[in-house]
Amino acid sequence: MQRISLSTATVPAPLLVTGSIAYDDIETPRGNGENLLGGSASYASIAASYFTDVHIVGVVGTDFRGGDRTRLSARGIAMDGLHQDCSGQTFHWRGKYHENYNQRDTLDVSPGVFSGFLPTLPPACRTIPYVLLSNITPALQWHVLSQVQSPRFVLLDTMDLWIETAHADLLRILPRADILIVNDSEARSLGSDDNLIRAGQTLRQMGARAVIVKKGEHGALLFHPDGLFALPAHPVIELHDPTGAGDSFAGALAGTLAALQRTDFAACKLAMLYATALASLTVEAFSCDRLESAGIAEIEERASNIRQMIALD
Amino acid sequence: MQRISLSTATVPAPLLVTGSIAYDDIETPRGNGENLLGGSASYASIAASYFTDVHIVGVVGTDFRGGDRTRLSARGIAMDGLHQDCSGQTFHWRGKYHENYNQRDTLDVSPGVFSGFLPTLPPACRTIPYVLLSNITPALQWHVLSQVQSPRFVLLDTMDLWIETAHADLLRILPRADILIVNDSEARSLGSDDNLIRAGQTLRQMGARAVIVKKGEHGALLFHPDGLFALPAHPVIELHDPTGAGDSFAGALAGTLAALQRTDFAACKLAMLYATALASLTVEAFSCDRLESAGIAEIEERASNIRQMIALD
Repeated sequence: MQRISLSTATVPAPLLVTGSIAYDDIETPRGNGENLLGGSASYASIAASYFTDVHIVGVVGTDFRGGDRTRLSARGIAMDGLHQDCSGQTFHWRGKYHENYNQRDTLDVSPGVFSGFLPTLPPACRTIPYVLLSNITPALQWHVLSQVQSPRFVLLDTMDLWIETAHADLLRILPRADILIVNDSEARSLGSDDNLIRAGQTLRQMGARAVIVKKGEHGALLFHPDGLFALPAHPVIELHDPTGAGDSFAGALAGTLAALQRTDFAACKLAMLYATALASLTVEAFSCDRLESAGIAEIEERASNIRQMIALD
Repeated sequence: MQRISLSTATVPAPLLVTGSIAYDDIETPRGNGENLLGGSASYASIAASYFTDVHIVGVVGTDFRGGDRTRLSARGIAMDGLHQDCSGQTFHWRGKYHENYNQRDTLDVSPGVFSGFLPTLPPACRTIPYVLLSNITPALQWHVLSQVQSPRFVLLDTMDLWIETAHADLLRILPRADILIVNDSEARSLGSDDNLIRAGQTLRQMGARAVIVKKGEHGALLFHPDGLFALPAHPVIELHDPTGAGDSFAGALAGTLAALQRTDFAACKLAMLYATALASLTVEAFSCDRLESAGIAEIEERASNIRQMIALD
């Protein structure tokens, strides 16, 4: 497995990724796609696989295609935590992006085998030190995390739906997060403050050690115990399908930190650089297509572009 | 006049600032103010005065207060181009900011002596090498600029109103701009593209040598012949009155470049840093109050904060 080499001194630590594995039907102003491999864990695992060994924990149904299993394993992703449930179908999501991609509507959700999924982790997964709880219900995130023995680092992703419908569960898991990732409207909602700077600070007071607020085309902010860091987005000229951008961001972020075996302020900044680079790839095509087709050189080029975009001198 | 020292090798070049000088009535969620000194040239001149000698070109009416004249001259601003027209009142604007400052309504505009103002520049103003055309009608900007003999650098500010109502005039002056400043919605509108990156590129193709797109709390983008530069906003916790933020940004930007006597990519980036710092001060109080009360140390501290916010290592 070809990897981005971040450190010659450290062997990358493995990363556990849990979340959804889905088939998506997506309508966009630039075309439609059906039964596309999606879900937070799919995007996050593939993005992270550029940096370190990834173990995916999730569930698929009888309809899960062998070809999609191969797509994951081709990126070196360990499948010991991927459960195939023969009682039903894979999680299915249907959504539509409006003109200018300003708004997304969920047209249909069929949880399929995802309903009531409460995995028992295989022994090899229980000692993995870096954990990405990508976007699923906070209760399921808690269930997975509680089986990991003393994780060194936990990255927690979530979404507006859980802020609204699973608020107590989310508040319970928040103090377990070394980094919480939310977008700007989620930060304002969960932090109960329209001022994004205060909202980010509030989310840290609510228990997350650090917070990253994603702002789409405006980049991302990191609220860290050691300071505030702002990073622009990679300029996106050809937006095709924003689905999975945030999941790819989270995956690359966790993958970078696991590869570095560091979670300090500087490491988090570098991780955001790669997270931004991978997210910018994802939106250029449907599904994980661009993530998979990107090579090391292309990812490094995007990271370098962003470095140049923020260089003062 | 206490100044921020940007270069020991260069004597700052003087800066000509033209634009409006106004009295504003402003309603905000945090309080109201009446007959506040405002207008694009007032904010811009005071912001620029921290960096270099400023000559203001504009018009006021019989109601213009001696105290407000003193506020400008106390910042060392030369008044040889400030005309007092005894035939009427000073430009008056009344506006209201809604909850969360997301929207601003203009409730009333009384141009007063500003109607038909077509100044003849005093001789000393005609040879000033750095020119800031802060926000007024493009026709008036053209009228002033045409009297300046071979300016070395022209910064052009504008607003949505002129994009809609004086489009041809704006297109005519655009190729005279070394830097055009617009906000994000103006960039999309004038550049006829919802993608901000493409819109910025288009505005350069329309004639501006470089373009700065201001994005409020999300910072600003510089589209320069030598590359793209992104700078975050200074974190604003206490937003009181956004009026004049853009004008202060433009003033500090032009002032920095005049002080450096440089307009290359690196100089533009440094100028954006100070522009961002000054804009963040303006919004913390009504009128030019915070701009005036800020000391050199406070401005340098904000510039330093922004440097830290974007430092990768």
